Amino acid sequence: MKETYRELQQEVSKRGFGSCCHNLIEKLFFEAARVLSNSEKQDTVSKVLGKSYFTFARKYKSRPINEALYWEDRDNVAAVLRAILTGRRRTLEAEAITRGIYTVTMTCCAAIDVNSSGDKKTPGTIFEWLCAAIMTAALEVEPCRSLAVLNLDLETKLPTDFIFDLGREKPKFHLPVKTSTRERIIQVWAHQRVLDGVYGVGRFLAMPVILTETKLGSAKNEVVEICLPLQWRLYQMHIASLWNVCYLDAPSAYLSLDRKFPRVAVSTIGDMLAANGRLDELLEAHGLKPK
Amino acid sequence: MKETYRELQQEVSKRGFGSCCHNLIEKLFFEAARVLSNSEKQDTVSKVLGKSYFTFARKYKSRPINEALYWEDRDNVAAVLRAILTGRRRTLEAEAITRGIYTVTMTCCAAIDVNSSGDKKTPGTIFEWLCAAIMTAALEVEPCRSLAVLNLDLETKLPTDFIFDLGREKPKFHLPVKTSTRERIIQVWAHQRVLDGVYGVGRFLAMPVILTETKLGSAKNEVVEICLPLQWRLYQMHIASLWNVCYLDAPSAYLSLDRKFPRVAVSTIGDMLAANGRLDELLEAHGLKPK
Repeated sequence: MKETYRELQQEVSKRGFGSCCHNLIEKLFFEAARVLSNSEKQDTVSKVLGKSYFTFARKYKSRPINEALYWEDRDNVAAVLRAILTGRRRTLEAEAITRGIYTVTMTCCAAIDVNSSGDKKTPGTIFEWLCAAIMTAALEVEPCRSLAVLNLDLETKLPTDFIFDLGREKPKFHLPVKTSTRERIIQVWAHQRVLDGVYGVGRFLAMPVILTETKLGSAKNEVVEICLPLQWRLYQMHIASLWNVCYLDAPSAYLSLDRKFPRVAVSTIGDMLAANGRLDELLEAHGLKPK
Repeated sequence: MKETYRELQQEVSKRGFGSCCHNLIEKLFFEAARVLSNSEKQDTVSKVLGKSYFTFARKYKSRPINEALYWEDRDNVAAVLRAILTGRRRTLEAEAITRGIYTVTMTCCAAIDVNSSGDKKTPGTIFEWLCAAIMTAALEVEPCRSLAVLNLDLETKLPTDFIFDLGREKPKFHLPVKTSTRERIIQVWAHQRVLDGVYGVGRFLAMPVILTETKLGSAKNEVVEICLPLQWRLYQMHIASLWNVCYLDAPSAYLSLDRKFPRVAVSTIGDMLAANGRLDELLEAHGLKPK
Protein backbone atom coordinates (compact mmCIF):
# COMPACT_ATOMS: atom_id res chain seq x y z
CA MET A 1 0.00 0.00 0.00
CA LYS A 2 2.80 2.44 0.86
CA GLU A 3 4.13 2.63 -2.70
CA THR A 4 0.63 3.19 -4.14
CA TYR A 5 -0.08 5.82 -1.48
CA ARG A 6 3.06 7.70 -2.54
CA GLU A 7 2.13 7.45 -6.22
CA LEU A 8 -1.33 8.75 -5.43
CA GLN A 9 0.15 11.62 -3.44
CA GLN A 10 2.32 12.63 -6.39
CA GLU A 11 -0.50 12.23 -8.89
CA VAL A 12 -2.88 14.38 -6.80
CA SER A 13 -0.34 17.14 -6.32
CA LYS A 14 0.73 17.14 -9.97
CA ARG A 15 -2.43 16.48 -11.94
CA GLY A 16 -5.33 16.47 -9.48
CA PHE A 17 -8.27 14.10 -9.40
CA GLY A 18 -8.54 12.78 -12.97
CA SER A 19 -8.50 9.24 -14.37
CA CYS A 20 -4.93 8.37 -13.24
CA CYS A 21 -6.01 9.24 -9.69
CA HIS A 22 -9.11 7.02 -10.09
CA ASN A 23 -6.93 4.07 -11.11
CA LEU A 24 -4.62 4.58 -8.15
CA ILE A 25 -7.54 4.80 -5.68
CA GLU A 26 -8.88 1.52 -7.06
CA LYS A 27 -5.42 -0.05 -6.80
CA LEU A 28 -5.08 1.14 -3.21
CA PHE A 29 -8.51 -0.31 -2.38
CA PHE A 30 -7.58 -3.77 -3.69
CA GLU A 31 -4.23 -3.70 -1.89
CA ALA A 32 -5.97 -2.72 1.33
CA ALA A 33 -8.50 -5.52 0.83
CA ARG A 34 -5.58 -7.97 0.55
CA VAL A 35 -4.15 -6.74 3.87
CA LEU A 36 -7.53 -7.30 5.50
CA SER A 37 -7.93 -10.80 4.09
CA ASN A 38 -4.90 -11.65 6.26
CA SER A 39 -6.59 -10.07 9.30
CA GLU A 40 -9.07 -11.60 11.68
CA LYS A 41 -12.64 -10.29 11.75
CA GLN A 42 -13.82 -9.79 15.35
CA ASP A 43 -17.17 -8.91 16.86
CA THR A 44 -17.68 -5.86 19.08
CA VAL A 45 -20.34 -4.87 21.59
CA SER A 46 -22.37 -2.16 19.89
CA LYS A 47 -23.88 0.54 22.08
CA VAL A 48 -25.28 2.22 18.96
CA LEU A 49 -29.01 1.53 18.69
CA GLY A 50 -29.87 -0.52 15.60
CA LYS A 51 -26.29 -0.84 14.28
CA SER A 52 -23.73 -3.66 14.53
CA TYR A 53 -19.99 -3.18 14.24
CA PHE A 54 -16.99 -5.47 13.77
CA THR A 55 -13.24 -4.84 13.65
CA PHE A 56 -10.31 -6.30 11.76
CA ALA A 57 -7.44 -7.39 13.99
CA ARG A 58 -3.83 -8.12 13.12
CA LYS A 59 -1.00 -6.35 14.92
CA TYR A 60 -3.59 -3.82 16.15
CA LYS A 61 -7.37 -3.58 16.04
CA SER A 62 -8.96 -1.49 13.30
CA ARG A 63 -11.57 1.19 13.91
CA PRO A 64 -15.11 -0.27 14.14
CA ILE A 65 -16.89 -1.04 10.86
CA ASN A 66 -20.67 -0.91 10.31
CA GLU A 67 -21.77 -4.37 9.20
CA ALA A 68 -24.81 -3.17 7.27
CA LEU A 69 -22.75 -0.73 5.20
CA TYR A 70 -19.69 -2.91 4.53
CA TRP A 71 -19.81 -4.78 1.25
CA GLU A 72 -17.79 -8.00 1.05
CA ASP A 73 -17.98 -8.24 -2.75
CA ARG A 74 -14.87 -6.23 -3.74
CA ASP A 75 -15.57 -6.30 -7.47
CA ASN A 76 -19.03 -4.87 -6.97
CA VAL A 77 -17.58 -2.12 -4.75
CA ALA A 78 -14.97 -1.30 -7.39
CA ALA A 79 -17.68 -1.13 -10.07
CA VAL A 80 -19.75 1.30 -7.97
CA LEU A 81 -16.67 3.42 -7.28
CA ARG A 82 -15.81 3.53 -10.97
CA ALA A 83 -19.38 4.54 -11.88
CA ILE A 84 -19.24 7.42 -9.37
CA LEU A 85 -15.78 8.57 -10.48
CA THR A 86 -16.67 8.52 -14.18
CA GLY A 87 -19.75 10.70 -13.85
CA ARG A 88 -22.39 7.95 -13.72
CA ARG A 89 -23.53 8.55 -10.12
CA ARG A 90 -27.14 9.11 -11.27
CA THR A 91 -27.40 5.52 -12.47
CA LEU A 92 -26.95 4.23 -8.89
CA GLU A 93 -29.32 3.91 -5.94
CA ALA A 94 -28.53 6.16 -2.97
CA GLU A 95 -27.85 3.15 -0.78
CA ALA A 96 -25.38 1.65 -3.25
CA ILE A 97 -23.49 4.96 -3.39
CA THR A 98 -23.25 5.16 0.40
CA ARG A 99 -22.21 1.52 0.79
CA GLY A 100 -19.69 1.69 -2.05
CA ILE A 101 -17.94 4.81 -0.76
CA TYR A 102 -18.12 3.53 2.84
CA THR A 103 -16.53 0.21 1.91
CA VAL A 104 -13.68 1.76 -0.09
CA THR A 105 -12.95 4.21 2.74
CA MET A 106 -13.17 1.71 5.59
CA THR A 107 -11.10 -0.89 3.75
CA CYS A 108 -8.25 1.60 3.25
CA CYS A 109 -8.51 2.98 6.82
CA ALA A 110 -8.72 -0.45 8.49
CA ALA A 111 -5.77 -1.79 6.48
CA ILE A 112 -3.64 1.04 7.88
CA ASP A 113 -5.10 0.69 11.40
CA VAL A 114 -4.21 -3.02 11.72
CA ASN A 115 -0.53 -2.42 10.96
CA SER A 116 0.17 0.84 12.77
CA SER A 117 -0.90 2.29 16.07
CA GLY A 118 -1.87 5.94 16.14
CA ASP A 119 -1.47 6.80 12.44
CA LYS A 120 -4.52 8.98 11.90
CA LYS A 121 -3.03 11.17 9.21
CA THR A 122 -2.70 8.62 6.39
CA PRO A 123 -6.32 7.34 6.61
CA GLY A 124 -7.57 10.92 6.86
CA THR A 125 -5.60 11.96 3.78
CA ILE A 126 -6.83 9.02 1.70
CA PHE A 127 -10.41 9.86 2.68
CA GLU A 128 -9.83 13.49 1.65
CA TRP A 129 -8.53 12.46 -1.77
CA LEU A 130 -11.41 10.05 -2.31
CA CYS A 131 -14.01 12.72 -1.46
CA ALA A 132 -12.26 15.28 -3.63
CA ALA A 133 -12.20 12.83 -6.55
CA ILE A 134 -15.92 12.07 -6.07
CA MET A 135 -16.89 15.75 -6.01
CA THR A 136 -14.60 16.56 -8.95
CA ALA A 137 -16.53 13.94 -10.93
CA ALA A 138 -19.92 15.17 -9.66
CA LEU A 139 -19.28 18.87 -10.27
CA GLU A 140 -16.98 18.52 -13.30
CA VAL A 141 -14.46 20.98 -11.89
CA GLU A 142 -11.16 20.53 -10.02
CA PRO A 143 -10.93 21.95 -6.48
CA CYS A 144 -8.52 24.53 -5.12
CA ARG A 145 -7.24 24.75 -1.52
CA SER A 146 -6.89 28.45 -0.82
CA LEU A 147 -8.63 31.70 -1.66
CA ALA A 148 -7.33 35.18 -2.22
CA VAL A 149 -8.42 37.77 0.33
CA LEU A 150 -8.35 41.37 -0.81
CA ASN A 151 -9.64 43.57 1.94
CA LEU A 152 -8.37 47.15 1.91
CA ASP A 153 -4.78 47.04 3.16
CA LEU A 154 -4.98 43.37 4.13
CA GLU A 155 -3.93 41.13 1.28
CA THR A 156 -3.43 37.44 1.90
CA LYS A 157 -4.21 33.87 0.96
CA LEU A 158 -6.74 32.10 3.14
CA PRO A 159 -5.96 28.37 3.34
CA THR A 160 -9.21 26.41 3.05
CA ASP A 161 -10.50 22.90 2.69
CA PHE A 162 -11.39 21.92 -0.89
CA ILE A 163 -13.24 24.67 -2.79
CA PHE A 164 -15.23 23.77 -5.93
CA ASP A 165 -16.07 26.91 -7.87
CA LEU A 166 -18.77 26.39 -10.52
CA GLY A 167 -18.02 29.81 -11.98
CA ARG A 168 -19.23 33.42 -11.96
CA GLU A 169 -22.63 33.81 -10.28
CA LYS A 170 -22.82 30.06 -9.72
CA PRO A 171 -22.54 28.12 -6.45
CA LYS A 172 -19.15 27.64 -4.84
CA PHE A 173 -18.81 24.62 -2.55
CA HIS A 174 -16.62 24.38 0.53
CA LEU A 175 -15.83 20.75 1.31
CA PRO A 176 -14.23 19.98 4.67
CA VAL A 177 -13.52 16.23 4.92
CA LYS A 178 -13.21 14.58 8.35
CA THR A 179 -13.03 10.96 9.51
CA SER A 180 -14.88 12.05 12.70
CA THR A 181 -15.59 15.37 14.34
CA ARG A 182 -17.01 15.46 17.92
CA GLU A 183 -16.40 18.91 19.40
CA ARG A 184 -13.96 19.79 16.58
CA ILE A 185 -16.94 20.22 14.21
CA ILE A 186 -17.22 23.82 15.44
CA GLN A 187 -14.24 24.59 13.16
CA VAL A 188 -16.40 23.91 10.11
CA TRP A 189 -19.00 26.45 11.22
CA ALA A 190 -16.25 28.94 12.06
CA HIS A 191 -14.62 28.59 8.62
CA GLN A 192 -18.03 29.12 7.01
CA ARG A 193 -18.43 32.27 9.11
CA VAL A 194 -15.09 33.61 7.84
CA LEU A 195 -16.11 32.86 4.23
CA ASP A 196 -19.48 34.60 4.83
CA GLY A 197 -17.66 37.58 6.31
CA VAL A 198 -14.97 37.93 3.68
CA TYR A 199 -17.01 37.12 0.55
CA GLY A 200 -20.63 37.68 1.60
CA VAL A 201 -23.30 35.41 3.11
CA GLY A 202 -24.48 32.70 0.72
CA ARG A 203 -21.46 32.92 -1.57
CA PHE A 204 -20.02 29.58 -0.42
CA LEU A 205 -22.04 26.47 0.38
CA ALA A 206 -20.50 24.33 3.12
CA MET A 207 -20.85 20.63 2.50
CA PRO A 208 -18.74 18.77 5.07
CA VAL A 209 -18.26 15.06 4.41
CA ILE A 210 -17.75 12.97 7.55
CA LEU A 211 -17.01 9.27 7.78
CA THR A 212 -18.54 8.38 11.17
CA GLU A 213 -18.85 9.45 14.82
CA THR A 214 -18.21 5.99 16.27
CA LYS A 215 -15.35 5.03 18.53
CA LEU A 216 -14.13 1.69 19.87
CA GLY A 217 -13.45 1.65 23.60
CA SER A 218 -10.67 -0.94 23.66
CA ALA A 219 -11.06 -1.90 27.34
CA LYS A 220 -14.62 -3.19 26.98
CA ASN A 221 -14.61 -3.73 23.19
CA GLU A 222 -17.62 -1.42 23.05
CA VAL A 223 -18.58 0.81 20.13
CA VAL A 224 -20.11 4.14 21.07
CA GLU A 225 -21.29 7.02 18.90
CA ILE A 226 -20.51 10.50 20.21
CA CYS A 227 -23.01 13.15 19.07
CA LEU A 228 -23.73 16.71 20.18
CA PRO A 229 -27.00 17.57 18.40
CA LEU A 230 -27.91 20.48 20.69
CA GLN A 231 -24.54 22.13 20.10
CA TRP A 232 -25.00 21.70 16.35
CA ARG A 233 -28.28 23.62 16.55
CA LEU A 234 -26.62 26.44 18.48
CA TYR A 235 -23.77 26.59 15.95
CA GLN A 236 -26.19 26.66 13.02
CA MET A 237 -28.20 29.46 14.69
CA HIS A 238 -25.33 31.56 15.99
CA ILE A 239 -22.17 31.00 13.93
CA ALA A 240 -23.15 30.35 10.32
CA SER A 241 -25.39 28.16 8.21
CA LEU A 242 -23.95 24.99 6.68
CA TRP A 243 -25.62 23.98 3.45
CA ASN A 244 -25.62 20.20 3.99
CA VAL A 245 -23.67 17.84 6.24
CA CYS A 246 -22.95 14.47 4.56
CA TYR A 247 -22.19 11.24 6.41
CA LEU A 248 -21.01 7.85 5.23
CA ASP A 249 -22.19 6.19 8.49
CA ALA A 250 -24.81 8.75 9.51
CA PRO A 251 -25.70 9.01 13.24
CA SER A 252 -29.47 9.04 13.70
CA ALA A 253 -29.12 11.86 16.26
CA TYR A 254 -27.87 14.08 13.43
CA LEU A 255 -30.20 12.76 10.70
CA SER A 256 -33.10 13.81 12.93
CA LEU A 257 -31.88 17.45 12.82
CA ASP A 258 -32.82 17.33 9.12
CA ARG A 259 -36.49 17.15 10.13
CA LYS A 260 -36.46 19.71 12.98
CA PHE A 261 -37.12 23.43 12.92
CA PRO A 262 -34.82 25.33 12.69
CA ARG A 263 -33.23 22.74 10.46
CA VAL A 264 -29.66 21.56 10.10
CA ALA A 265 -29.57 19.73 6.76
CA VAL A 266 -27.94 16.33 7.23
CA SER A 267 -27.93 13.39 4.79
CA THR A 268 -26.04 10.29 3.79
CA ILE A 269 -23.60 10.72 0.93
CA GLY A 270 -25.91 8.55 -1.20
CA ASP A 271 -28.88 10.89 -0.65
CA MET A 272 -26.60 13.74 -1.65
CA LEU A 273 -25.28 12.22 -4.88
CA ALA A 274 -28.11 10.02 -6.23
CA ALA A 275 -30.34 11.16 -9.11
CA ASN A 276 -32.68 13.93 -7.90
CA GLY A 277 -30.79 14.00 -4.59
CA ARG A 278 -29.73 17.14 -2.75
CA LEU A 279 -26.93 18.03 -5.14
CA ASP A 280 -29.14 17.68 -8.21
CA GLU A 281 -31.87 19.78 -6.58
CA LEU A 282 -29.41 22.59 -6.02
CA LEU A 283 -27.81 22.33 -9.46
CA GLU A 284 -31.25 22.40 -11.06
CA ALA A 285 -32.26 25.48 -9.07
CA HIS A 286 -29.23 27.29 -10.53
CA GLY A 287 -29.78 26.25 -14.14
CA LEU A 288 -27.00 23.69 -13.96
CA LYS A 289 -29.42 20.90 -14.78
CA PRO A 290 -28.16 17.34 -14.65
CA LYS A 291 -27.74 15.91 -18.10
CA MET B 1 3.79 12.39 40.45
CA LYS B 2 0.92 10.04 39.57
CA GLU B 3 -0.40 9.87 43.12
CA THR B 4 -0.28 13.66 43.54
CA TYR B 5 -1.94 14.12 40.15
CA ARG B 6 -4.82 11.89 41.30
CA GLU B 7 -5.13 13.75 44.61
CA LEU B 8 -5.21 17.04 42.72
CA GLN B 9 -7.87 15.69 40.36
CA GLN B 10 -10.07 14.72 43.32
CA GLU B 11 -9.46 17.98 45.13
CA VAL B 12 -10.34 20.06 42.05
CA SER B 13 -13.53 18.13 41.37
CA LYS B 14 -14.64 18.18 45.02
CA ARG B 15 -13.55 21.55 46.35
CA GLY B 16 -12.21 23.55 43.41
CA PHE B 17 -9.17 25.78 43.36
CA GLY B 18 -8.65 26.76 47.02
CA SER B 19 -5.65 26.40 49.32
CA CYS B 20 -5.58 22.56 49.31
CA CYS B 21 -5.31 22.73 45.53
CA HIS B 22 -2.47 25.27 45.83
CA ASN B 23 -0.52 22.92 48.12
CA LEU B 24 -0.99 20.02 45.71
CA ILE B 25 0.15 22.08 42.71
CA GLU B 26 3.28 23.05 44.62
CA LYS B 27 3.88 19.40 45.60
CA LEU B 28 3.44 18.32 41.98
CA PHE B 29 5.94 20.97 40.87
CA PHE B 30 8.64 19.75 43.29
CA GLU B 31 8.02 16.12 42.33
CA ALA B 32 8.30 17.04 38.65
CA ALA B 33 11.51 18.95 39.36
CA ARG B 34 12.94 15.80 40.96
CA VAL B 35 12.11 13.77 37.85
CA LEU B 36 13.94 16.35 35.73
CA SER B 37 17.02 16.39 37.95
CA ASN B 38 17.45 12.77 36.84
CA SER B 39 17.12 13.78 33.17
CA GLU B 40 19.73 15.11 30.85
CA LYS B 41 19.54 18.70 29.61
CA GLN B 42 20.17 18.88 25.85
CA ASP B 43 20.58 21.77 23.43
CA THR B 44 18.36 22.24 20.39
CA VAL B 45 18.72 24.21 17.17
CA SER B 46 16.37 27.16 17.55
CA LYS B 47 14.74 28.50 14.40
CA VAL B 48 12.88 31.07 16.50
CA LEU B 49 14.50 34.47 16.13
CA GLY B 50 15.97 35.74 19.40
CA LYS B 51 15.00 32.72 21.52
CA SER B 52 16.98 29.67 22.67
CA TYR B 53 15.43 26.35 23.63
CA PHE B 54 16.65 23.20 25.38
CA THR B 55 14.99 19.87 26.15
CA PHE B 56 15.14 17.37 28.98
CA ALA B 57 15.84 13.80 27.83
CA ARG B 58 15.34 10.54 29.66
CA LYS B 59 13.29 7.74 28.10
CA TYR B 60 11.93 10.34 25.67
CA LYS B 61 12.72 13.96 24.86
CA SER B 62 10.60 16.66 26.47
CA ARG B 63 8.95 19.49 24.56
CA PRO B 64 11.35 22.44 23.97
CA ILE B 65 11.84 24.87 26.86
CA ASN B 66 12.64 28.58 26.49
CA GLU B 67 15.96 29.21 28.25
CA ALA B 68 15.24 32.86 29.06
CA LEU B 69 11.93 32.02 30.75
CA TYR B 70 12.97 28.90 32.67
CA TRP B 71 14.06 29.55 36.23
CA GLU B 72 16.46 27.05 37.78
CA ASP B 73 15.88 28.27 41.35
CA ARG B 74 12.93 26.06 42.39
CA ASP B 75 12.37 27.77 45.73
CA ASN B 76 12.10 31.14 44.09
CA VAL B 77 9.63 29.75 41.57
CA ALA B 78 7.56 28.24 44.38
CA ALA B 79 7.56 31.57 46.22
CA VAL B 80 6.32 33.41 43.12
CA LEU B 81 3.64 30.78 42.56
CA ARG B 82 2.49 31.06 46.16
CA ALA B 83 2.32 34.86 45.93
CA ILE B 84 0.14 34.62 42.80
CA LEU B 85 -2.14 31.95 44.27
CA THR B 86 -2.65 33.82 47.54
CA GLY B 87 -3.77 37.07 45.94
CA ARG B 88 -0.44 38.91 46.01
CA ARG B 89 0.10 39.08 42.23
CA ARG B 90 0.33 42.89 42.35
CA THR B 91 3.51 42.73 44.44
CA LEU B 92 5.36 41.02 41.56
CA GLU B 93 6.97 42.33 38.38
CA ALA B 94 5.28 41.22 35.13
CA GLU B 95 8.41 39.32 34.11
CA ALA B 96 8.57 37.40 37.38
CA ILE B 97 4.92 36.37 36.99
CA THR B 98 5.50 35.10 33.44
CA ARG B 99 8.72 33.26 34.36
CA GLY B 100 7.23 31.75 37.50
CA ILE B 101 4.12 30.40 35.81
CA TYR B 102 6.15 29.28 32.77
CA THR B 103 8.62 27.36 34.94
CA VAL B 104 5.93 25.59 36.99
CA THR B 105 4.05 24.60 33.82
CA MET B 106 7.08 23.49 31.81
CA THR B 107 8.54 21.53 34.73
CA CYS B 108 5.31 19.53 35.12
CA CYS B 109 4.87 19.04 31.35
CA ALA B 110 8.50 18.04 30.71
CA ALA B 111 8.51 15.58 33.64
CA ILE B 112 5.57 13.77 31.98
CA ASP B 113 7.08 14.06 28.48
CA VAL B 114 10.37 12.37 29.43
CA ASN B 115 8.62 9.26 30.79
CA SER B 116 5.77 8.77 28.33
CA SER B 117 5.43 9.14 24.61
CA GLY B 118 2.31 10.79 23.29
CA ASP B 119 0.58 11.66 26.58
CA LYS B 120 -0.74 15.11 25.77
CA LYS B 121 -3.80 14.95 28.00
CA THR B 122 -2.11 14.91 31.44
CA PRO B 123 0.15 17.96 30.79
CA GLY B 124 -2.82 19.80 29.27
CA THR B 125 -5.01 19.07 32.27
CA ILE B 126 -2.37 20.20 34.78
CA PHE B 127 -1.95 23.44 32.83
CA GLU B 128 -5.74 23.95 32.89
CA TRP B 129 -5.89 23.50 36.66
CA LEU B 130 -2.95 25.85 37.20
CA CYS B 131 -4.55 28.59 35.07
CA ALA B 132 -7.90 28.10 36.76
CA ALA B 133 -6.27 28.38 40.20
CA ILE B 134 -4.42 31.55 39.14
CA MET B 135 -7.57 33.21 37.82
CA THR B 136 -9.61 32.08 40.84
CA ALA B 137 -7.06 33.91 43.01
CA ALA B 138 -6.99 36.96 40.73
CA LEU B 139 -10.77 37.31 40.39
CA GLU B 140 -11.75 35.95 43.82
CA VAL B 141 -14.44 33.72 42.37
CA GLU B 142 -14.52 30.00 41.46
CA PRO B 143 -15.14 29.09 37.81
CA CYS B 144 -17.93 26.96 36.36
CA ARG B 145 -17.72 24.80 33.22
CA SER B 146 -21.14 25.06 31.60
CA LEU B 147 -23.87 27.62 31.06
CA ALA B 148 -27.63 27.30 30.89
CA VAL B 149 -29.19 28.15 27.52
CA LEU B 150 -32.84 29.16 27.58
CA ASN B 151 -33.94 30.06 24.10
CA LEU B 152 -37.65 29.62 23.39
CA ASP B 153 -38.26 25.87 23.03
CA LEU B 154 -34.55 25.02 23.13
CA GLU B 155 -33.37 24.37 26.65
CA THR B 156 -29.92 22.95 27.21
CA LYS B 157 -26.56 23.21 28.96
CA LEU B 158 -23.72 24.56 26.88
CA PRO B 159 -20.39 23.00 27.91
CA THR B 160 -17.72 25.70 28.04
CA ASP B 161 -14.15 26.27 29.08
CA PHE B 162 -13.76 27.91 32.50
CA ILE B 163 -16.23 30.75 33.09
CA PHE B 164 -15.53 33.33 35.83
CA ASP B 165 -18.67 35.31 36.56
CA LEU B 166 -18.02 38.49 38.60
CA GLY B 167 -21.75 38.92 39.16
CA ARG B 168 -24.78 40.81 37.84
CA GLU B 169 -23.84 43.57 35.40
CA LYS B 170 -20.16 42.81 35.91
CA PRO B 171 -17.69 41.21 33.47
CA LYS B 172 -17.83 37.48 32.85
CA PHE B 173 -14.60 35.89 31.64
CA HIS B 174 -14.29 32.92 29.32
CA LEU B 175 -10.94 31.19 29.81
CA PRO B 176 -9.93 28.57 27.25
CA VAL B 177 -6.57 27.05 28.23
CA LYS B 178 -4.35 25.44 25.57
CA THR B 179 -0.77 24.18 25.56
CA SER B 180 -0.57 25.21 21.87
CA THR B 181 -3.13 26.11 19.23
CA ARG B 182 -2.04 26.44 15.55
CA GLU B 183 -5.12 26.19 13.32
CA ARG B 184 -7.23 24.90 16.24
CA ILE B 185 -7.32 28.43 17.68
CA ILE B 186 -10.35 29.12 15.45
CA GLN B 187 -12.40 27.15 18.00
CA VAL B 188 -11.83 29.89 20.57
CA TRP B 189 -13.24 32.54 18.24
CA ALA B 190 -16.15 30.25 17.35
CA HIS B 191 -17.03 29.64 21.01
CA GLN B 192 -16.93 33.39 21.61
CA ARG B 193 -19.31 33.83 18.66
CA VAL B 194 -21.77 31.35 20.22
CA LEU B 195 -21.57 33.17 23.57
CA ASP B 196 -22.13 36.51 21.77
CA GLY B 197 -25.12 35.02 19.95
CA VAL B 198 -26.76 33.32 22.89
CA TYR B 199 -26.12 35.95 25.60
CA GLY B 200 -25.41 39.15 23.65
CA VAL B 201 -22.22 40.73 22.32
CA GLY B 202 -19.87 41.95 25.06
CA ARG B 203 -21.42 39.82 27.79
CA PHE B 204 -18.43 37.45 27.98
CA LEU B 205 -14.79 38.46 27.67
CA ALA B 206 -12.61 35.79 26.06
CA MET B 207 -9.18 35.51 27.61
CA PRO B 208 -7.47 32.41 26.21
CA VAL B 209 -4.27 31.38 28.00
CA ILE B 210 -1.77 29.56 25.77
CA LEU B 211 1.55 28.03 26.77
CA THR B 212 3.53 28.30 23.53
CA GLU B 213 3.42 27.78 19.76
CA THR B 214 6.80 26.03 19.52
CA LYS B 215 7.41 22.50 18.33
CA LEU B 216 10.48 20.27 18.29
CA GLY B 217 11.15 18.56 14.98
CA SER B 218 12.82 15.41 16.28
CA ALA B 219 14.64 14.52 13.03
CA LYS B 220 16.75 17.68 12.93
CA ASN B 221 16.41 18.63 16.62
CA GLU B 222 15.04 21.98 15.43
CA VAL B 223 12.60 24.18 17.31
CA VAL B 224 10.09 26.03 15.15
CA GLU B 225 7.26 28.37 16.10
CA ILE B 226 4.07 28.02 14.06
CA CYS B 227 2.04 31.22 13.82
CA LEU B 228 -0.85 32.34 11.61
CA PRO B 229 -1.14 36.09 12.30
CA LEU B 230 -3.10 36.89 9.14
CA GLN B 231 -5.70 34.27 9.95
CA TRP B 232 -6.00 35.68 13.49
CA ARG B 233 -6.84 39.09 12.04
CA LEU B 234 -9.53 37.58 9.79
CA TYR B 235 -11.01 35.67 12.73
CA GLN B 236 -11.05 38.79 14.91
CA MET B 237 -12.74 40.78 12.13
CA HIS B 238 -15.21 38.15 10.95
CA ILE B 239 -16.02 35.68 13.72
CA ALA B 240 -15.94 37.49 17.06
CA SER B 241 -13.73 39.72 19.16
CA LEU B 242 -11.48 38.15 21.79
CA TRP B 243 -10.78 40.40 24.72
CA ASN B 244 -7.12 39.45 25.29
CA VAL B 245 -4.96 36.49 24.30
CA CYS B 246 -2.38 35.59 26.98
CA TYR B 247 0.84 33.68 26.34
CA LEU B 248 3.43 32.20 28.67
CA ASP B 249 6.02 32.02 25.84
CA ALA B 250 4.57 34.72 23.59
CA PRO B 251 5.40 34.54 19.83
CA SER B 252 6.52 37.93 18.55
CA ALA B 253 4.34 37.46 15.45
CA TYR B 254 1.30 37.58 17.73
CA LEU B 255 2.57 40.26 20.13
CA SER B 256 2.90 42.56 17.11
CA LEU B 257 -0.86 42.21 16.47
CA ASP B 258 -1.31 44.11 19.73
CA ARG B 259 0.11 47.22 18.05
CA LYS B 260 -1.68 46.92 14.67
CA PHE B 261 -5.00 48.35 13.54
CA PRO B 262 -7.46 46.66 13.71
CA ARG B 263 -5.97 45.26 16.88
CA VAL B 264 -5.94 41.77 18.33
CA ALA B 265 -4.99 42.26 21.98
CA VAL B 266 -2.14 39.88 22.87
CA SER B 267 0.06 39.95 25.96
CA THR B 268 2.22 37.82 28.20
CA ILE B 269 0.51 36.45 31.28
CA GLY B 270 2.71 38.76 33.39
CA ASP B 271 1.48 41.86 31.54
CA MET B 272 -2.06 40.63 32.18
CA LEU B 273 -1.69 39.99 35.91
CA ALA B 274 0.85 42.55 37.18
CA ALA B 275 -0.23 45.69 39.04
CA ASN B 276 -1.92 48.12 36.61
CA GLY B 277 -1.77 45.44 33.92
CA ARG B 278 -4.60 44.57 31.53
CA LEU B 279 -6.73 42.83 34.13
CA ASP B 280 -6.47 45.68 36.62
CA GLU B 281 -7.32 48.22 33.90
CA LEU B 282 -10.52 46.34 33.13
CA LEU B 283 -11.46 45.79 36.75
CA GLU B 284 -10.92 49.47 37.46
CA ALA B 285 -13.09 50.49 34.53
CA HIS B 286 -15.94 48.46 36.04
CA GLY B 287 -15.60 49.78 39.57
CA LEU B 288 -13.94 46.59 40.76
CA LYS B 289 -10.84 48.46 41.80
CA PRO B 290 -7.86 46.44 42.94
CA LYS B 291 -7.38 46.71 46.67
